[in-house]
Amino acid sequence: MDFKNWFETKVKVIDEYLEEIIEVKDNPQSVIYEAMNYSLLSGGKRLRPVLLLAAYELFKEDYAEALPFAGAMEMIHTYSLIHDDLPAMDDDDYRRGKITNHKKFGEAMAILAGDGLLNKAFEIALEAVDSKTKVRALNIIAESSGTEGMIGGQLVDMEGWRKISSLEDLKYMYSLKTGAIIKSSIVAGAILGGAREEEIKALENYAKKIGIAFQIKDDILDLTGNEEKLGKAIGSDTLNNKITYLTFKNIEESKNDVERLTEEGIESLRIFGEKSFYLVELAKYLTKREN
Amino acid sequence: MDFKNWFETKVKVIDEYLEEIIEVKDNPQSVIYEAMNYSLLSGGKRLRPVLLLAAYELFKEDYAEALPFAGAMEMIHTYSLIHDDLPAMDDDDYRRGKITNHKKFGEAMAILAGDGLLNKAFEIALEAVDSKTKVRALNIIAESSGTEGMIGGQLVDMEGWRKISSLEDLKYMYSLKTGAIIKSSIVAGAILGGAREEEIKALENYAKKIGIAFQIKDDILDLTGNEEKLGKAIGSDTLNNKITYLTFKNIEESKNDVERLTEEGIESLRIFGEKSFYLVELAKYLTKREN
Repeated sequence: MDFKNWFETKVKVIDEYLEEIIEVKDNPQSVIYEAMNYSLLSGGKRLRPVLLLAAYELFKEDYAEALPFAGAMEMIHTYSLIHDDLPAMDDDDYRRGKITNHKKFGEAMAILAGDGLLNKAFEIALEAVDSKTKVRALNIIAESSGTEGMIGGQLVDMEGWRKISSLEDLKYMYSLKTGAIIKSSIVAGAILGGAREEEIKALENYAKKIGIAFQIKDDILDLTGNEEKLGKAIGSDTLNNKITYLTFKNIEESKNDVERLTEEGIESLRIFGEKSFYLVELAKYLTKREN
Repeated sequence: MDFKNWFETKVKVIDEYLEEIIEVKDNPQSVIYEAMNYSLLSGGKRLRPVLLLAAYELFKEDYAEALPFAGAMEMIHTYSLIHDDLPAMDDDDYRRGKITNHKKFGEAMAILAGDGLLNKAFEIALEAVDSKTKVRALNIIAESSGTEGMIGGQLVDMEGWRKISSLEDLKYMYSLKTGAIIKSSIVAGAILGGAREEEIKALENYAKKIGIAFQIKDDILDLTGNEEKLGKAIGSDTLNNKITYLTFKNIEESKNDVERLTEEGIESLRIFGEKSFYLVELAKYLTKREN
């Protein structure tokens, strides 16, 4: 199967899984499911769950048992977007070409819908836990979404003007805010698939490299992207005086860094030979994406 | 050991556990640990973790293995208080006699500190999971804190003026908002201790009864309590036109219902004989509490 086909198939599988996962019950709190699904089913790239399944498939074929973990990953990602968009945080009106959750449902609902998605992520993954391997995978996911991972990154980002004063600082923030979840998607997938420790190490290295490349690419897109394809206004980082990769390097240098990091990430997949085809292509696809 | 002594010992054990659990690291996101600990270590009643340990001790003695789950319970409870107090939700300035988290640290930090506590709850419990019994216990905790439990209850409460029009509706909301977590504390403790299914059933019934009694008592305290002991202003429910138990019944009837429900809850402990002493006393203590 060629990469495009493979990728679209995976996204479809994940979308179908996510569409089913939140059972909209007929009870007084049912309106929260509408708010949760509004953001969860708004056509994201599904990058994190795809990475998880791709890493899993390096080791095992039938990915059915990995799906709840892939779904949990996307729920954690989505909740973080809902909370990040809140007026007290980034105060964003648009996300993926739609008005943000709190603009649509109100702030209180958006806070609860985010809480609900984080909680639901653990519910669905825990339901699928039937072995120590799966406990370990879920453990890694939990750590990566916490204060030493994604939440910590959002905090450092939020307080950026006080704390980030060098490219090193910025890379640290990125390694938490987006890097931790990208890494745990890949590592959890590998663990679920039965990877050996040196294989996990190699994938961890791949994940770190493409994680930073992903974030630099995001910064470049915010400056040079196509608003329609991006689904949000460009130039918002500049407008908000936000410190990004482009505060420290120019566009050309930044693009080169994306390429270099991607190459280095791909390099660490060498031990997997042919089997790493889709992960290699995924890394390349991320450098070319327009949203 | 008499009840008072037993209770104080348990609270001390839990407090010590919680004081240690959030390792304040020397990194850029360390300020979030201050915000998390501010609310977590602000002298709550520790009711939920005490219930969990009490249920556990019906079946096993050394409660060390149950502590991470008890701690997780208090973290989930604390995060829900931080988010509920936010301006977009209940907009409260005081909690447990201290200014609320967002008043102290700002709204963005309070949102993240809440997220951090929910996530950390799963982190510490998952670290302790080494058997199917523990997966089951954590599963029950996860469900109870989600949209069919605590989050769902907060949602129905928030939209109360639109949805709650009868005592039945109100009891439904209470069964979710506070009841679900009280029940899961007890049931998870019992499962961790190795309870049989009919024992779990009996404890579930006890939990349901004292859960509603607890919430009615809260409503009574809001009207007749001592502000100093309560650590917050009284009459806030009336001020906010909030629908409470006292919207439907008078104080005398409400007090009688607390007594009756507590009696019924204690009744279901009969199968445990002498061993249920502390759970019996706990139920009585809750009817007499002043905060």
